[in-house]
Order: sequence, then C-alpha cells, then structure tokens
Amino acid sequence: MTDSETGVSAEPARGRTGKRERLVAAAVEVFHQQGVEKTTLGDIARVAEVPLGNVYYYFKTKDRLVEAAVDAHCAQLHELTARLDELPDPATRLRTLVAGWVEQRDTAARFGCPFGTLATELDKRDDGLDLAAAKVMRALIDWTEAQFTQLGRPDAHDLAIELVAAYQGMSVLTNTLRDPNLMATQGRRLQNWIDTLA
Amino acid sequence: MTDSETGVSAEPARGRTGKRERLVAAAVEVFHQQGVEKTTLGDIARVAEVPLGNVYYYFKTKDRLVEAAVDAHCAQLHELTARLDELPDPATRLRTLVAGWVEQRDTAARFGCPFGTLATELDKRDDGLDLAAAKVMRALIDWTEAQFTQLGRPDAHDLAIELVAAYQGMSVLTNTLRDPNLMATQGRRLQNWIDTLA
Repeated sequence: MTDSETGVSAEPARGRTGKRERLVAAAVEVFHQQGVEKTTLGDIARVAEVPLGNVYYYFKTKDRLVEAAVDAHCAQLHELTARLDELPDPATRLRTLVAGWVEQRDTAARFGCPFGTLATELDKRDDGLDLAAAKVMRALIDWTEAQFTQLGRPDAHDLAIELVAAYQGMSVLTNTLRDPNLMATQGRRLQNWIDTLA
Repeated sequence: MTDSETGVSAEPARGRTGKRERLVAAAVEVFHQQGVEKTTLGDIARVAEVPLGNVYYYFKTKDRLVEAAVDAHCAQLHELTARLDELPDPATRLRTLVAGWVEQRDTAARFGCPFGTLATELDKRDDGLDLAAAKVMRALIDWTEAQFTQLGRPDAHDLAIELVAAYQGMSVLTNTLRDPNLMATQGRRLQNWIDTLA
C-alpha cells in the first residue's frame, strides 16, 4: 500500500510536498475539464490519488484550491515566457507563443483555453478570485507588450491586447464549434500578422 | 394579489405565456450574472416573480431552462440581424454590429458576453447543449460572412471568423480586467478595420 493510499508517509516532508503538488495539478486539470462550480473536492482527490480526508490538511475549501490553481497557471506562464525569452528575437518569441497555442488546439476544441475558461468562470464572481485571474492575464499582456516594444512599435500595448484577445477569441470559437482547424487557421493568420509588424 | 403571486390565472392562456416568457428572460439574466452551475431554479423563479412550484409546469429541469435560454439568445440574434439588414450597406451593418457590442461594455466588464460566457460554460459538457450553443455562434458567423461576401471579399469566411473571434476575445479581456475602455478601444480598431475592407 502506497503513501497516497494510506495518507501516512514514511517521509512526511517529501510525502506532503508531493501530495500538495498532485492536488494542485489535479485541480488545474479538473477545473479545465468540468469547470470550478461542477467540481467537488472529491473529484480532485480522486484524480490526485490523495485520500479525501487528506485534502483538508492542505486545502480547507475548494476556493483555496482555486487560488492554488490560479497560482499554478501564473507559474506555468512564467516558465513559458522564460523559455521564450531565450529565443534570439521578439518576433520569433511571439510566433513561438502562437505556435504553442495552436499545438493545444485539440484540447481547446474539447475544453477551451485552460486559463481563459477559468478566468471567465471566476469573473462572474466578485470575491477576489476574479482579481487573481486578472493578474495572470495582465502578466501575459505585459510580456507580449514588451516584445512589441522591442520590435520598436509605439502602439505595443494595443498590439498586445489585440494578440491576446485574438487568442482568447479563437479559443472560444474553437471550443464552441469543436473545430481545432479554426485555431490552426487563425494561428497562421496571427503569425503572418506578426511578420508584417516585425 | 396578482397572477404571478398566486400562480392561478383568471386568463390561463395569457397568464401561462407571460410566466414562461418571464422565466426564460430571468434564466438568460441569471445565467449571465452567475453562470449555469451556480444557478438554482429557485434563483430564476425569484427573478421571474413566478412561484417555484409553478416553474416545474413549464420546465421540468434546469437543463430545459438552459435550452430555452439558448433559444432566446438565438431569437435575439435573429432580431438583431433583421434590424441590421434594414441598413443600406454591409459595411454599415458590420460597423453597427460592433457599435452594439461596445454599447454593452459596462455589462461585459462585470459579467462578460451574455452568449459567449454561456457557450464557454456549456462547452465543458458533451450532452447536446454544447451543440445548441454552437448553432447560435454559427448563425452569427454566417450572417457576418454574408456581409463580407456582399463587400466582394473572397475571404469572407475567414474575415467573419476573425471579427467574431475578436469580439469574443475582447469580451474575455474586458471581463477579466474589468475594463470597459478596452472594449471601446478594440471596437474602434475593428470599425477602422471594416473600413479598410469595404
């Protein structure tokens, strides 16, 4: 019987860290697949393979797991932009960002943008979790704006809004029409658009 | 005491029609404000001022009200495009469509696009309601494509996808950042873009 089945760890520190991480990863996945409101702590515990009784040790309520999921999206975005920053020029970074979105088109057709659909659900609320979602969206816009600024564009902010909005919009349409090709076509359009601005 | 308080109508036919319509209008409003999952039939009954016991006469389950809300969005879209079709030329129709979105920017900042956020929530599902949402989105794209075709554009379909995606994307960002000005700025950009295509 493993640690995750009993909830008792021979190595408490490592065991606990592993379980918390598994719970957060499961929360991100399950929120993406079925939304926050429909999800129970039991759903997350099952996917994380952590006993439900143990979940409360790490997260007292579902909202604490929502916070942790938003933080995980923020951390993933920072990792992504750090990798993109290693590319030699801003236009290549932006094109690679778009290529990454297009790669996820089958998932987007089934469940939408992992972060955009979470933000859309949290934005119905007015309890601070909506502001946490805004912080992540703003981080993506700010990074995108910095690339356009490096391209010498005085309208870098508006271009960043246009690119991120185009991504969110093509995600909504790809998802609603269940059509991954829509994202491939729009992705090519955005990459050509980036070329005209570079 | 009124018909809506007692649930008993002196004029059954008119009384019933009025209540069903009030329930559907309330469903559209409450789903927009708090999402489908969070909404109970009791919430909708209260906003519609229809006794909860009466709701079941018209709608056996919440999903039947979701269907009716999607149908109501479809009917609203047909009314809107019928009004736009009275305008003399396709570019004016498209610019007026965009102006209507911008007019709703304060509501979009608080609750997002009434139809887009509903579609996003239903798209997590796989039970037919997602397909009903797709039908409405497709009707908007088809009407938009017809305008670009009338403008003589061979790429009318792609332009329609681009315009509707731009609207959905600017709605997500306006909502997430709680910034109605974002929609005003993007609306102006789209109207200028339509002018360059006309």
